[in-house]
Amino acid sequence: MSDIEQYMLELGAQARAASWEIGKATTAQKNSALIAIAEAIDARPEDLLAANKLDLQAGTDKGLADALMDRLELTPARIDAMIEGLHQVAALPDPVGEISDMKYRPSGIQVGRMRVPLGVVGIIYESRPNVTCEAASLCLKSGNATILRGGSEAIQSNRAIAACINFGLEQVGLNTHVVQVLDRIDRDAVGKLITMVEFVDVIIPRGGKGLIERVSEEAKVPVIKHLDGNCHLYVDDGADLEKATAVALNAKTQRYGTCCTLESLLLADSVAAELLPGLAKKYLELGVELRGCEKTRKIVAAVGPATEEDWAAEYLAPILSIKIVAGLDEAISHINRYSSQHTDSIMTQDVNRAQRFLREVDSSSVMVNASTRFADGFEYGLGAEIGISTDKLHARGPVGLEGLTSQKYIVIGDGHVRK
Amino acid sequence: MSDIEQYMLELGAQARAASWEIGKATTAQKNSALIAIAEAIDARPEDLLAANKLDLQAGTDKGLADALMDRLELTPARIDAMIEGLHQVAALPDPVGEISDMKYRPSGIQVGRMRVPLGVVGIIYESRPNVTCEAASLCLKSGNATILRGGSEAIQSNRAIAACINFGLEQVGLNTHVVQVLDRIDRDAVGKLITMVEFVDVIIPRGGKGLIERVSEEAKVPVIKHLDGNCHLYVDDGADLEKATAVALNAKTQRYGTCCTLESLLLADSVAAELLPGLAKKYLELGVELRGCEKTRKIVAAVGPATEEDWAAEYLAPILSIKIVAGLDEAISHINRYSSQHTDSIMTQDVNRAQRFLREVDSSSVMVNASTRFADGFEYGLGAEIGISTDKLHARGPVGLEGLTSQKYIVIGDGHVRK
Repeated sequence: MSDIEQYMLELGAQARAASWEIGKATTAQKNSALIAIAEAIDARPEDLLAANKLDLQAGTDKGLADALMDRLELTPARIDAMIEGLHQVAALPDPVGEISDMKYRPSGIQVGRMRVPLGVVGIIYESRPNVTCEAASLCLKSGNATILRGGSEAIQSNRAIAACINFGLEQVGLNTHVVQVLDRIDRDAVGKLITMVEFVDVIIPRGGKGLIERVSEEAKVPVIKHLDGNCHLYVDDGADLEKATAVALNAKTQRYGTCCTLESLLLADSVAAELLPGLAKKYLELGVELRGCEKTRKIVAAVGPATEEDWAAEYLAPILSIKIVAGLDEAISHINRYSSQHTDSIMTQDVNRAQRFLREVDSSSVMVNASTRFADGFEYGLGAEIGISTDKLHARGPVGLEGLTSQKYIVIGDGHVRK
Repeated sequence: MSDIEQYMLELGAQARAASWEIGKATTAQKNSALIAIAEAIDARPEDLLAANKLDLQAGTDKGLADALMDRLELTPARIDAMIEGLHQVAALPDPVGEISDMKYRPSGIQVGRMRVPLGVVGIIYESRPNVTCEAASLCLKSGNATILRGGSEAIQSNRAIAACINFGLEQVGLNTHVVQVLDRIDRDAVGKLITMVEFVDVIIPRGGKGLIERVSEEAKVPVIKHLDGNCHLYVDDGADLEKATAVALNAKTQRYGTCCTLESLLLADSVAAELLPGLAKKYLELGVELRGCEKTRKIVAAVGPATEEDWAAEYLAPILSIKIVAGLDEAISHINRYSSQHTDSIMTQDVNRAQRFLREVDSSSVMVNASTRFADGFEYGLGAEIGISTDKLHARGPVGLEGLTSQKYIVIGDGHVRK
């Protein structure tokens, strides 16, 4: 057995043992731990900044791209946000142990469901060191043990954050193995993490598509994954065009780089001629490149041609594809063909077409008369978000504390036997 | 591309297309289809019996074991049960489209969840041809398309049942690709079925541990799996010993071959001397072989020695392992170590120890004062059961219609944009 394999098995066994402990911890204990971690960070933010400085220096030496360097950096404001986040998670209701649907059955037994932690959650992420704190706090509150594998470029920052987390766990008498940060960041360590089914119950990769595809491809442990966000807005026949304009602009331009940013606009034939010229003008003023179907280009000459690739693209950039469709049916089939099943929205005043869109569009978030930018755990009221799932099993859409738990059946009898 | 691969891709694409259709079918349409299938079977049961006779003949020629031949056989009574099952599924409430938790958020949008089909479900099973009808009906009602891969020994019977299903779907104008029975039963076909993630959303293997392990090992599509049922009953200090005796006997002896049959009995030290002699006598009278720890053997001499393997064994036979433990803590840690996380039960009169057992035992069904034999979709009121999951993600325990669906988020606004 290789050295790294032995290290990982030890870590896994420790996580499993810690998961029994945190799974039965009281709400008060878990909240105290979260507050203690926040206080540990608040007491010596200079430790985090010093560790982060080492990572930044190494990053500069390696010539990391600016965007990566930005994500890597911890500032006093970002540290304050981490502390605030810990307090917010402590304030959220504890999902663990919640009993629902208790019913008496004809046999006389009572049957219901109890919400329970998943066990051990492995998180694999890239440069942002604040993910260490966010992910650990959500797993802790939901009664799970966590193994965190951050990016190699953030290793000093992650170690410093882990020290605060361990200090907080110790303060309230919890096993420090509840949160373990991988100190060995070799590729082999990840390979082992995603295959040791006896010790890890679920893997959540957070990062670029390459990372997520590699993890999904090689994992034996179930993965909650988030691939593309190719989001659509369809403006229906008879939609309120003023509202449609506002939502279309917001969904595309409020932020270009998020997974719920609009990437493709569909217009009913009947509204295109009236809506498009004004809307296109505003997009172009904001610097958005437009690529459209032939009909679109006949209405607005400044629109470039869209290819088959454009319909499937997640640009994450100031580019938008536009297609004119006959109506709702064509819109739904276009979306179900090209969408990445993340978030799709309709602008309509017709209640039955709204209902059809909600039911028939097979995406994790489906909206009526609202900007796709609302697809977010905080906006949905989950309190926090460990990721957004584009899977169909277990959890779809933003994943909060509830998504880090499942439900077991509980049965209460009084000596009942099966006939 | 191999011939079989091409066949599977075609089947997959047909299933995906059919899944859009059945996903939006009305409750009335789906119920009519189920009734039409029942009527098609009822009209010509002799077709099914004739096809089954061919399978039985081939089985005899191949020298199949008696147990296998029994599972393979269709009798008029079994056909009636299939018909009855179809009517029962038609009578169940439709889970698809159910909207829950709609709430207004501070931003003004309304957010909730809608229950939706999973899409395409692949079922891989062994000899029993009635599974074809059961699985197809549950998937149909929950709005999913299905690809069914039965055992090679039942191929004629499965084709005859598939003909009735297709006839029923046609009768109500539904796409017959909603239910497809694999006509090619090569190992390669299964290999393709469990890896074509673009066309299949979930695989449910039903059969022996070997089948399930192979499928889990090789699948790229998520698997809802059911491995062992090593179920425990713990008799706590101060339990009602008369009820404990009745439950212990029922859990072990009501049926030996089911996954929720008791395999290991744990006794608190304080009750063992009083409970064990009478209980052991009854087990021995019923022909149950007892294997116990040393303390157990000191109380009842007829108990053989239990080894480490016994604590982990799923006997599916008239054998029971018995261990005397100090109390609740030891019982819970023994169970969490050796149980297969299927079903475990406690006999106790103490409300707080009952609560601790319910919360801390990490199994898909956890019971108080009830026989483990109750762990069953019908007993739990699910109306039907496609399997029992020993996984932790998505569904734990008996899986009914709800387990064949998931929830997406829905958002309703009135032109709302994100600030």
